[in-house]
Amino acid sequence: MGDNYLVISSDGHAGPPPEQYAQYMDPVHRARYEEFIATLVAMREAGNGAFSAQTKFRDKFLAKTGDGGIRASWDSDVRLKELDADGIAAEVLFPDADVLGIGGISSSPFGTGLGASGRDDPELAMAGARAHNRWLADLCAQAPERRAGVMTVPIIHDPKAGVEEIRRAFDDGVTGAVMIPTQWAPHASYNDAVYDEVWATCQERNLCVTVHAGGTPGDVSGTNALPVFSAEAWFFAARPLWSLIWGGVFERFPDLKFAVTEDGGWWKPGMFTQMDMQWEGLHTTLKFGDTYRLALPEKPSFYFDRNCFIAIGITDLEMGMRDEIGVDQLIWGHDFPHPEGFWPHTRDWQRIRFHDVPENETRKMLGLNALRAFKNLDADKLRAIADDIGPTPDEIHHQPPPPNPDEVAA
Amino acid sequence: MGDNYLVISSDGHAGPPPEQYAQYMDPVHRARYEEFIATLVAMREAGNGAFSAQTKFRDKFLAKTGDGGIRASWDSDVRLKELDADGIAAEVLFPDADVLGIGGISSSPFGTGLGASGRDDPELAMAGARAHNRWLADLCAQAPERRAGVMTVPIIHDPKAGVEEIRRAFDDGVTGAVMIPTQWAPHASYNDAVYDEVWATCQERNLCVTVHAGGTPGDVSGTNALPVFSAEAWFFAARPLWSLIWGGVFERFPDLKFAVTEDGGWWKPGMFTQMDMQWEGLHTTLKFGDTYRLALPEKPSFYFDRNCFIAIGITDLEMGMRDEIGVDQLIWGHDFPHPEGFWPHTRDWQRIRFHDVPENETRKMLGLNALRAFKNLDADKLRAIADDIGPTPDEIHHQPPPPNPDEVAA
Repeated sequence: MGDNYLVISSDGHAGPPPEQYAQYMDPVHRARYEEFIATLVAMREAGNGAFSAQTKFRDKFLAKTGDGGIRASWDSDVRLKELDADGIAAEVLFPDADVLGIGGISSSPFGTGLGASGRDDPELAMAGARAHNRWLADLCAQAPERRAGVMTVPIIHDPKAGVEEIRRAFDDGVTGAVMIPTQWAPHASYNDAVYDEVWATCQERNLCVTVHAGGTPGDVSGTNALPVFSAEAWFFAARPLWSLIWGGVFERFPDLKFAVTEDGGWWKPGMFTQMDMQWEGLHTTLKFGDTYRLALPEKPSFYFDRNCFIAIGITDLEMGMRDEIGVDQLIWGHDFPHPEGFWPHTRDWQRIRFHDVPENETRKMLGLNALRAFKNLDADKLRAIADDIGPTPDEIHHQPPPPNPDEVAA
Repeated sequence: MGDNYLVISSDGHAGPPPEQYAQYMDPVHRARYEEFIATLVAMREAGNGAFSAQTKFRDKFLAKTGDGGIRASWDSDVRLKELDADGIAAEVLFPDADVLGIGGISSSPFGTGLGASGRDDPELAMAGARAHNRWLADLCAQAPERRAGVMTVPIIHDPKAGVEEIRRAFDDGVTGAVMIPTQWAPHASYNDAVYDEVWATCQERNLCVTVHAGGTPGDVSGTNALPVFSAEAWFFAARPLWSLIWGGVFERFPDLKFAVTEDGGWWKPGMFTQMDMQWEGLHTTLKFGDTYRLALPEKPSFYFDRNCFIAIGITDLEMGMRDEIGVDQLIWGHDFPHPEGFWPHTRDWQRIRFHDVPENETRKMLGLNALRAFKNLDADKLRAIADDIGPTPDEIHHQPPPPNPDEVAA
């Protein structure tokens, strides 16, 4: 066994050009999907120029990368080539690859991707999710040991139908995780026992439950709504975490794993110090007596440490707080092909971020922790791949970090 | 001039027994207010026993304090006596004194207190706010130099009507601050320029704009909804802060002050590091080009440092982070008469919390910062009062801190 790092990216995005979804869609919804695409195209054309800054960036990104990673969003061989070049043995695959609109629209149909919400039409939401999950099963089948597919399942409208789709998609080959909508309203929040069969189904199949940034309650508009959204995005995606914990879900399903993805991690120490204090019934919650302790046998951070993970690129902010966040709970992701991720400079960014982090901690955050979150990944097979392509400790730690790739590219 | 600390509590609550509000209510709404009270009483009776832990605590609190501070919620002389005993020169007065339900229902009428929301009926909301603000003007008039009244104004349904109420209540003698609803939906968020006349009116009159914990979007129910609410309460109250900053409000109104109240402060360093990074256009927001910097001439933390305050009891968690939160921005509050506050052991709690904090920092957090937030307070008059009743540095720092009052009382 070599000492190369086993690198698992817990945050990748995949999706086909929109017309490819049609063949995966239940026939009864295909005409509606055509209309849906036409509306999106029209909206996008009407919005052109509104983000001229983004258009400028897109041109630069394309000049640097060729196609912005778009072909790798759906072409298995091209994706594997990029993964090998980046030293990544396996990837956790979320929907919504094309945030820059380079390759047309390829988000999960009918808004069932990162922005899925209780405001979506229930029938279309399930139809769109099924189409994406079927497409994803085909992508995963082309390199099953390197792909932990994330099925998107709108469990909120009808939890029983959600359970059915989880079973179906799992049997179809999507074995990494289940992404649940971050915006549940007006349906039940995740502390409600109405979802218990969902969690049982995931626990039985070793499917991690995940959330990912992107959703919003839609109540901010006006001047600079985008920066306001950016400031709040972590909260509106991470919110299911404390609903699940206080709902006792990890007490009833002790082997269930849950990952919060692309939401930063700076908030974890504060949120859990606060929740633990409330659980203890210290001064500020003394007036509630034993209410919180009777609600949950262990304090909230116990369940975080045992059941939960935070998947991020691990910025300098989080790296400095890694002990408080949890070195055993942080899992690295490169967010390919999103430009806020690390491709095509992943190895450089790893040297920049991890060069002064001890080897045993680096090993956990870059890959070993992810094996505990996404339990259907095969560690032995990935170890063999990592021996061929993974970065070595020497590369990461024992040479000076490279200059910032953004500045070199600018 | 003595060296006693000038102590200002930036978080106090006042309100009368519900029948007293009737005389302050526009006659046309009085019958409706009777019905409103009857409904609340019925709901409270139906809910009795649901919080038996809280009932137990209430009995203990009453045994210790006599009446739980309820008479001081509306009786000026009793309140002054308690303030003197606690060493507090002046107080910022929010509504909703009676969270334990000791004295009957005395929250601001028609839900216009801490939980005010865009879901409230616009006409009743304004009627209820006017009634509370008129009552508050009378309370303030009985000791104007020691009371910075916080008018509650539902500015979201009709900002022009909000401006009128702010002018009216200010002329009536409520000169401390304007509390705005934390739950604006379905109306415009605070980054929208539709509220500019509100901010202009507050700036002109040296009225601080405030938010206070208590509101919720109402989308959490089921098992342990209370702990979930507690985990999230800070966010749903603090949210207007970044709407105002990104909306450029403090750029257009450079003398406007804003205070977030009873929401902790642990989140401030992370939120602002994140927003400043986004403003700088570093790697993760590179794809937006200059968007964020063009949106705001200075970075978000610039406006926080110049215009904003965090009003809390200052727990050990925040005390340890005070440099990152901002020693010039933290303002202390004793939350009287809420039992999560410090009465009747305020001096003990100050010794526990501040005994190892340098005197100049203690001076700022206990009182001097509040003078910059609530600019209609008269520093000279308060200095004279503090010389009589304020704790001395010797009392706070140069004797061992007392045992935890909760444990002594238990």
